[in-house]
Amino acid sequence: MTDVIIAIDCMGGDFGPSVTIPSVKKILKGYSNVAFHLFGDITQITHHLKVNKILGHSRIRITGSIDDVTMNDQPAVALKSKKTSSMRLALEAVRDGQANACVSAGNTGALMAISRFVLKMLPGIDRPAIISAIPTLKNDHVYLLDLGANVVCDEKRLTQFAIMGNELAKCVDKVDSPKVGLLNVGEEDNKGSEKLRRAAELIGSIESINYAGFVEGNQIFSGDYQVIVTDGFTGNNVLKATEGLTHYLANKIKLAFERNWWAKFCGILAKPVIHAFKAEVNPEKYNGACLVGLRGIVIKSHGSANVHATCCAIEEAILQSYQKIPQVIRESLQQASEKLV
Amino acid sequence: MTDVIIAIDCMGGDFGPSVTIPSVKKILKGYSNVAFHLFGDITQITHHLKVNKILGHSRIRITGSIDDVTMNDQPAVALKSKKTSSMRLALEAVRDGQANACVSAGNTGALMAISRFVLKMLPGIDRPAIISAIPTLKNDHVYLLDLGANVVCDEKRLTQFAIMGNELAKCVDKVDSPKVGLLNVGEEDNKGSEKLRRAAELIGSIESINYAGFVEGNQIFSGDYQVIVTDGFTGNNVLKATEGLTHYLANKIKLAFERNWWAKFCGILAKPVIHAFKAEVNPEKYNGACLVGLRGIVIKSHGSANVHATCCAIEEAILQSYQKIPQVIRESLQQASEKLV
Repeated sequence: MTDVIIAIDCMGGDFGPSVTIPSVKKILKGYSNVAFHLFGDITQITHHLKVNKILGHSRIRITGSIDDVTMNDQPAVALKSKKTSSMRLALEAVRDGQANACVSAGNTGALMAISRFVLKMLPGIDRPAIISAIPTLKNDHVYLLDLGANVVCDEKRLTQFAIMGNELAKCVDKVDSPKVGLLNVGEEDNKGSEKLRRAAELIGSIESINYAGFVEGNQIFSGDYQVIVTDGFTGNNVLKATEGLTHYLANKIKLAFERNWWAKFCGILAKPVIHAFKAEVNPEKYNGACLVGLRGIVIKSHGSANVHATCCAIEEAILQSYQKIPQVIRESLQQASEKLV
Repeated sequence: MTDVIIAIDCMGGDFGPSVTIPSVKKILKGYSNVAFHLFGDITQITHHLKVNKILGHSRIRITGSIDDVTMNDQPAVALKSKKTSSMRLALEAVRDGQANACVSAGNTGALMAISRFVLKMLPGIDRPAIISAIPTLKNDHVYLLDLGANVVCDEKRLTQFAIMGNELAKCVDKVDSPKVGLLNVGEEDNKGSEKLRRAAELIGSIESINYAGFVEGNQIFSGDYQVIVTDGFTGNNVLKATEGLTHYLANKIKLAFERNWWAKFCGILAKPVIHAFKAEVNPEKYNGACLVGLRGIVIKSHGSANVHATCCAIEEAILQSYQKIPQVIRESLQQASEKLV
């Protein structure tokens, strides 16, 4: 029996159906109760279904698209002129109740704009926020938002982020009272801009939130918080800087094990150790950022995601479908709404 | 013969003279033309000079301080009421021409406020910016600023940062035409806030700057840019997040080499390789952020800096003293001043 239907924008990302279809195959095998509605170029999808030996699978439905969204499309242009794109059709399937969630690795700006137009926002939320789980030293994760959807945020929007992050941590991770921090240049109450201090006051006044004060950038990875709130400009730059640093350090460790014959010898012996380390800190595990604040579930996969990473994004969509995240956030927003007026 | 005199705030940082005095000893040994003017508690300084066998050294002068700045002092309070602190006296030595530069590991906010009051700003600059060199994949570094001195910045202040970073890269690193980037959530011209787009236009109009457009967070470590400009809120959080991630990854790699007997065995064999890797990516090498925009040289050492890191900060102060950085930035500002009015 099928519990959950996931709409896949097969054409999004750097690799399109050559990655999305093998990912679908893997999930079909692992989850007997999940079905897929695939959107994209029929010829390409059929070819890859055939190659992966899942053409005609009982839990796959296909809808053809025309004029798909490219990575260079302006959001407004994609919204106006790409009404039969795989991205648009997949989101409409969620809107129309034909799918529980949409997964796309396409153009983030276009996905934001089309999601907002097609699915609409939850009452009290102005714009979607991008939220993602970041690994921490305590072997769990912290939700960081916004990661780039809202470059300028006032205290009300930051408070909306706090409410949404709080509910995600409660529902997805079953944390009773998630610790919510607000990113700042210092922990003391007098640090940062006035806007941030007003946001601290507003978030602190929401009863359902366990507000734990200002946090600094290095505390993101400490595991002491379950949700960290910031504006999309800072969140995006922090996230991308950590990607850049990971790449830098991976390169340096590779060079260290190539430096001389002894290093090379050690590198060969230590291969399983380094492999285990890489597997643990692999950012692919954390692929699948959620566009929260919408009336439906939209998971953004990384543009360069491979099959493993794409499967992680689809699993996030399945999990959120079971948890009915948008409905839960909606209820929580109703309780906090008088503070946000 | 002494070319350069460095004023040391011996009491700043987590370890005070127990770290600053051994660092002074190391630099005295390595640099025969550098002298020190030490500021702090006479008893403590004398004790540590004795322990390090440099009491009475011909290139050391000591001035006693009273009521030093603590890490918890509010900047305004430190400025008003700590007029005989080691930090204040060291900065006054720079102002009075008795020292070429000041190095302090003390309270950043207080150092900013007192520096600004004692040394005054260069004409056309409103407030100091904190600038630091960040290692890159191309085995050189990029100057990132501001790192926390200015949490809210308009386009003029961002342009002042670009000018100052540009001059630092030219003078210290002898780069002819440093590539200057402006941090944003995307590379395209239409990305980010209006303020940022105005800053891009203003920076692009300064002839002496090789403005290379918007850059994303992951490009900080690419080595494709010599200067990256951002507001102090973003810069501070990016820098601290990378510190947090480095700590997280170091912990994970340590655990990977402790997982089982084979991993432990590999860890012992690979010790020199891991040691070389750690030495290369050691953040201590990059200790010594500069408070740029002042009429004198002030180097901020990390509060938790050890002897090696403190020596790096002192070496930065020596280098900048030879380059006469404030004078050079002043000349460049005069050329650009009509654009900044």
